[in-house]
Amino acid sequence: MAEDKKLVEAITSMEEDFAQWYTDVVKKAELVDYASVKGCMVIKPAGYAIWELIQQQLDAAFKETGVENVYMPLFIPESLLQKEKDHVEGFAPEVAWVTHGGLEPLQERLCVRPTSETLFCDFYARDIQSYRDLPKLYNQWCSVVRWEKTTRPFLRSREFLWQEGHTAHATAQEAEDRTIQMLNVYADFYEQVLAIPVIRGRKTDKEKFAGAEATYTIEAMMHDGKALQSATSHNFGDGFAKAFNIQYTDKDNTLKYVHQTSWGLTTRSIGAIIMVHGDDSGLVLPPKVAPTQMMIIPIMQKKAGVLDAAYNLKERLSKVLRVKVDDTDKSPGYKFSEQEMRGIPLRLEIGPKDLEKNQCVLVRRDTREKAFVSLDEVEEKALELLKQIQKDMFERAKAHRDAHIYEAADYEEFKEIIDTKPGFVNAMWCGEQACEDKIKEDTTATSRCMPFVQKQVGKTCVCCGRPARIMVTWGKAY
Amino acid sequence: MAEDKKLVEAITSMEEDFAQWYTDVVKKAELVDYASVKGCMVIKPAGYAIWELIQQQLDAAFKETGVENVYMPLFIPESLLQKEKDHVEGFAPEVAWVTHGGLEPLQERLCVRPTSETLFCDFYARDIQSYRDLPKLYNQWCSVVRWEKTTRPFLRSREFLWQEGHTAHATAQEAEDRTIQMLNVYADFYEQVLAIPVIRGRKTDKEKFAGAEATYTIEAMMHDGKALQSATSHNFGDGFAKAFNIQYTDKDNTLKYVHQTSWGLTTRSIGAIIMVHGDDSGLVLPPKVAPTQMMIIPIMQKKAGVLDAAYNLKERLSKVLRVKVDDTDKSPGYKFSEQEMRGIPLRLEIGPKDLEKNQCVLVRRDTREKAFVSLDEVEEKALELLKQIQKDMFERAKAHRDAHIYEAADYEEFKEIIDTKPGFVNAMWCGEQACEDKIKEDTTATSRCMPFVQKQVGKTCVCCGRPARIMVTWGKAY
Repeated sequence: MAEDKKLVEAITSMEEDFAQWYTDVVKKAELVDYASVKGCMVIKPAGYAIWELIQQQLDAAFKETGVENVYMPLFIPESLLQKEKDHVEGFAPEVAWVTHGGLEPLQERLCVRPTSETLFCDFYARDIQSYRDLPKLYNQWCSVVRWEKTTRPFLRSREFLWQEGHTAHATAQEAEDRTIQMLNVYADFYEQVLAIPVIRGRKTDKEKFAGAEATYTIEAMMHDGKALQSATSHNFGDGFAKAFNIQYTDKDNTLKYVHQTSWGLTTRSIGAIIMVHGDDSGLVLPPKVAPTQMMIIPIMQKKAGVLDAAYNLKERLSKVLRVKVDDTDKSPGYKFSEQEMRGIPLRLEIGPKDLEKNQCVLVRRDTREKAFVSLDEVEEKALELLKQIQKDMFERAKAHRDAHIYEAADYEEFKEIIDTKPGFVNAMWCGEQACEDKIKEDTTATSRCMPFVQKQVGKTCVCCGRPARIMVTWGKAY
Repeated sequence: MAEDKKLVEAITSMEEDFAQWYTDVVKKAELVDYASVKGCMVIKPAGYAIWELIQQQLDAAFKETGVENVYMPLFIPESLLQKEKDHVEGFAPEVAWVTHGGLEPLQERLCVRPTSETLFCDFYARDIQSYRDLPKLYNQWCSVVRWEKTTRPFLRSREFLWQEGHTAHATAQEAEDRTIQMLNVYADFYEQVLAIPVIRGRKTDKEKFAGAEATYTIEAMMHDGKALQSATSHNFGDGFAKAFNIQYTDKDNTLKYVHQTSWGLTTRSIGAIIMVHGDDSGLVLPPKVAPTQMMIIPIMQKKAGVLDAAYNLKERLSKVLRVKVDDTDKSPGYKFSEQEMRGIPLRLEIGPKDLEKNQCVLVRRDTREKAFVSLDEVEEKALELLKQIQKDMFERAKAHRDAHIYEAADYEEFKEIIDTKPGFVNAMWCGEQACEDKIKEDTTATSRCMPFVQKQVGKTCVCCGRPARIMVTWGKAY
């Protein structure tokens, strides 16, 4: 049992050091490995399979709204990146530059895309002529590069995987509607698939995307009370259209600029899953994104009939869920630890005594609850449990989050909460960036968003005391 | 009808200028657009949707053999690329180099991956310890960059999409078996899904992959008689393992080097579909990779009941196949041209007269054959036709290819065939690279492969007259 111990000891406890716990889980659950290029990661099969399930389900949700997938080039010529002033200012300091192709220097250097607004705009300028060509509802799945100084697997890396949607519309209203529509697609996806509750809101001007008129966001609370910006949706108005001259001939035969949006969700979402649901035994995956939903672990597998029964159950269950058998020569205890570390939602134990009783044991990863289940109804019970786990995980995450949202009426209270209690603080704001800056400087908390669901938690700005305009959710963020 | 003409006139005929025909189809079927970066392409929705269907089906075939997906970084440090001598010599002249991250020069320049052998090896060297860790059967879907001088959409571009499988095995035999297994997966995929017959064989040493012990290939013949290398599978032996020190402790407690393979298929396969199946009206897609398998085109759509019937048929048919209705205000003739240009395998026409007779018209894209079909059995008939089209397209492509494979016993005959007849030539070879070089210099034909299925078409090398060792298939290639 020395091995058993080793696996469990390998994880720092969450309470002791949350950051170290995160790193341990990421490694021990075999999600990623570090690469030879600093700040880049190797996504291993267990991690990539989660991303594949995210892609499948999110892509289907996009397509239901009429979105089509395309692929744009990896490189952006420097002159193209510079066309929209705010955009280039936001991104130029953190892009990687290609200066040589083969043995020769390039005439113009190319940046490796940090995001593809400029490429889509360049394309739309050629591709859109008439109102008949609108709307354009395009998306791409790809990797992007941002030369970050401090990196952490999934949360912040120099290269990450994402999807970026880019749409063009005839009117400002259509663009705004699409921006909100896609934010809601993300919010529903987080809540219903990843079992993570989110706050939907608008970013302040200070926090909005480089070149956007408005940025909307969904913000989730991690187990340590910190915020994770989980997906964003931007309305560009006609700013990019004017910079790139994207015009269409309307029905009335006049030339008009298009209105554009973009929206993205990244492999960061895997970081969110880990930090919202994980525990001291490792990862806990919501059933909908668990590459393996059940691990069958035979007990005393050398006894006659046990392995056969395990394989037989696997065959039956694989018709309704994603299931594997662990038939290695490790001890059952070690297998349990591994299944828990990897966050597999259900464990099925079957041994000689169970066989005698025509039963097996189902153990939930999230609560460790055990249930003895007749072999005759194992499919039905397993599906019920997976559904229940998915639901309970969301409810627990929501209860945890709600218990860590505070209200502050004045600045002393605000600072004390931020200082002593992990979580978010709702407080009123005057709308001036000076107060945002001061709060950040004093407390390291940032404005996460101006939530769509507002509540008047005071009448004056929590920072300067002047009349308040809106409630903001504040928090320390990843 | 001015518009009708325009669409048809837009395509050069295949006989007149095959290269121009190809370019026209790629543009008019809206598969790609040129990008601002020379030699890169924008893959538009109609093109990308084909790639998605290729990915889905090929990925499922990989997974059935135990392959798992991962993601490796985009960048390779120069020192890592240089670890395997033959490999770096093959790729260094055509890679793109990143020299700056943000505002600062990098300490070591990074190349944008042209292929990821070195990254997988670097990872395997850390990840593989024991015989228990083998085999590793990893694959990734990504884009790669090769700084080509002459480019054509899908066929040769500076960035292209592909998958690259990289496996590590305990023994040389296992590696060889896996190399052949994956070649057969590709061959079956080409024949059964893309309806393109292929010749399976081994590359000569001159043509093999940089760093490989053996490269296997599938070669397809395009409509103009030229060859397209359609997918390759490489056996690396333990060459990379020695360069990267990838060792495992075997059951007998000794350290051994792993044996490795890699194998890839690219967006080039879309070029193959175009050039094998296309005709003077545009693209012809095999049903299994047609994003839209049937276009419903209402005739006299303003007449009562016609559009409703079209929508109703769409709803019924969408349960069994991928179907759309073209309800735009274009003329039916123009809609027919568009559906043909885009290669949609089946057209369903329905008008007032058809409605009276409770029927519709199904028109095959490949043969233009029409069938009157009762509305009561339209699902059944449509599925039958799609199956038949898939089968016939393969048979026609095979008949065309077989009619353009020649045998040559001596060099005069060889040169005359290559000079006057489009197609492949089977001829004997002594095994010396000097003869390969001479044939290429004299005729521009290259050795496509040494087919697995051999035939003795002579006793002496077609070039030098010395005793022959093997039959080679020769041809001009893309």
